[in-house]
Amino acid sequence: MDEFASIHHWTAGRQADQWQRERGVVIGIGDDTAVVDPASAADGVAAPKRLLLAVDTMVETVHFKPATMRDEDVGYKALAANISDIAAMGGVPLHALVSVSVPPAYTPERMRRLYDGLYECAERYGVAIVGGDTTSSPQHLVVAVTLTGTVEAGRERLRSGAKPGDAVFVTGAVGMSAAGLHALLAEEARGGAPDCEEAGAGEALRALAPLVRAHQRPGPSVRAGRLLLEQGSCSSLNDVSDGLASEAWEIAEASGLRLVLREKHLPKSGSMAAYASSVGIDPMEWMLYGGEDYVLLGTSAAEDAEAIKAAFHQEGIPFFIIGETEAGEPEVELVRHGTAKEERIKLKKRGYNHFLS
Amino acid sequence: MDEFASIHHWTAGRQADQWQRERGVVIGIGDDTAVVDPASAADGVAAPKRLLLAVDTMVETVHFKPATMRDEDVGYKALAANISDIAAMGGVPLHALVSVSVPPAYTPERMRRLYDGLYECAERYGVAIVGGDTTSSPQHLVVAVTLTGTVEAGRERLRSGAKPGDAVFVTGAVGMSAAGLHALLAEEARGGAPDCEEAGAGEALRALAPLVRAHQRPGPSVRAGRLLLEQGSCSSLNDVSDGLASEAWEIAEASGLRLVLREKHLPKSGSMAAYASSVGIDPMEWMLYGGEDYVLLGTSAAEDAEAIKAAFHQEGIPFFIIGETEAGEPEVELVRHGTAKEERIKLKKRGYNHFLS
Repeated sequence: MDEFASIHHWTAGRQADQWQRERGVVIGIGDDTAVVDPASAADGVAAPKRLLLAVDTMVETVHFKPATMRDEDVGYKALAANISDIAAMGGVPLHALVSVSVPPAYTPERMRRLYDGLYECAERYGVAIVGGDTTSSPQHLVVAVTLTGTVEAGRERLRSGAKPGDAVFVTGAVGMSAAGLHALLAEEARGGAPDCEEAGAGEALRALAPLVRAHQRPGPSVRAGRLLLEQGSCSSLNDVSDGLASEAWEIAEASGLRLVLREKHLPKSGSMAAYASSVGIDPMEWMLYGGEDYVLLGTSAAEDAEAIKAAFHQEGIPFFIIGETEAGEPEVELVRHGTAKEERIKLKKRGYNHFLS
Repeated sequence: MDEFASIHHWTAGRQADQWQRERGVVIGIGDDTAVVDPASAADGVAAPKRLLLAVDTMVETVHFKPATMRDEDVGYKALAANISDIAAMGGVPLHALVSVSVPPAYTPERMRRLYDGLYECAERYGVAIVGGDTTSSPQHLVVAVTLTGTVEAGRERLRSGAKPGDAVFVTGAVGMSAAGLHALLAEEARGGAPDCEEAGAGEALRALAPLVRAHQRPGPSVRAGRLLLEQGSCSSLNDVSDGLASEAWEIAEASGLRLVLREKHLPKSGSMAAYASSVGIDPMEWMLYGGEDYVLLGTSAAEDAEAIKAAFHQEGIPFFIIGETEAGEPEVELVRHGTAKEERIKLKKRGYNHFLS
């Protein structure tokens, strides 16, 4: 299922822009989060900060299974994925509501572990858990987390602001989560558990702990988003939840231009590359089409990119300039450096699918 | 599963009150909705209106099945249930996020009908749909709707404010939705469809259209909630989503007193009573333990109750004084009028279960 095509098909044109504006809607369906101003809806007075609203859902057998995530990881990641959406707007996460649909296999003790992980993530990112809903589920666990955040009015970073000639950047290595998932599924095939830290864990999995952690305990990029907002010249922003190629496509389509990514500049994790080599997989597959890295992908005026990079390095946050934008039909190209000359290939729009390859 | 016991077990004491207050949390987990003030979290300045946040989830086979709800009804009711939570705080609903987990059986056409119903409800109550998340589901449809609303700061109506000697009221008939569900399940046993309006619908079901509509298209009580807030003397408020007895218990426990309901004053729908009689069921079972009526149950100072009733009647909204509160351990009693003298029975706390009786 192509999520964005589906949502668009079901929702497009249903409510007029003006009708939504009267209800304080600044940005509706289509970006990382909605942007609303409840005060303007109530009183007609614009507030200095706007409210960000996002929901993310994790479904057992679709996004995780016992072999890939411990219960506490499911809780942690369900919130972390949402925080990443707030980060991609340049916002600060604030309040979460948690809906869980619980099948019989999930005992109270397992649910308690799930909430342990959820609250651990909430603590780390300063998110208050303010409500929720618990229902039964016939067979599979479903966790839907809704998150609010705030951002200075007019400063929210959208996917749609990139200009031709901008630099394209990413705030961390990509492909590690997909590599971790591969390692977990390989461990499952050997009969092992998804726990790389326990003494009894498979030796192979323990050696791959950074990759496994990247999959089970991703770190959304709130500080990076705030830094980009403070720097001021970030023209578009997205988080890498669905794979670098797919997210680049979203910026290309929203901004109406071409993104050109340079293979040699893509940040490649050493452990990811070593593992890819050991299992005979092209690491570019994970880097371009593996999801859930939760780093930020964006654009800025080319002349400001080095200054932003310096500001990031001051704070110890990675920042990689990986390409540039060009006027043209929306698409994403990858520049590969062969033996003789540069070669440009068009990247597909396909997103990430956890258990199909 | 007892929802409130579960949520309490998983969440109690995890985040300190002060820590939550610093993040603008006014009311956290435990009432109909959370109440937050994002502006105070961001700037330390309290806003004149507060934000209400609620999430409600509907799971196929737990809350509905093809025999009880058409796809458009599922969409309508998923939002309506949430609006009822906002109404129970005295608030105005504003923005919704929709998470759907879609199994293979739900074709694009079926999903489009689900969204038809959702937007019909949104239109009626002035709710802007601002975002969502779509995932696959292995087998069953899950719809989780998150809703925001606004309410004047300090005016939100909680479950906890009832005082001994208050009048207990309800803003409409109870038990109709449960009767409608019974009729739908009976129609299923006859091989019929859940559609009481189509020409080909079963004759029996068409005659019961008001009950079926009460189940499939409930009308949350936003105007009633606003009226109660305007009247000023409503001391506690809850919506009847889980049955009158269960909601009365929530007020009793939150306020620390006893609710005494008088059987002869409970509003009884004529069509519900006639149907109950025809199938040999005690209508009190549906009135006390049937859920999803989405009327409001609350308390007010006894001396103000008649004035509130007059204000409701001015607007054409039902209002029934059904009992009173008494000092004492939290419990709920029903006064039945036998041939000789009054008899008081204690009502159980049990809530509503769609497909078990």
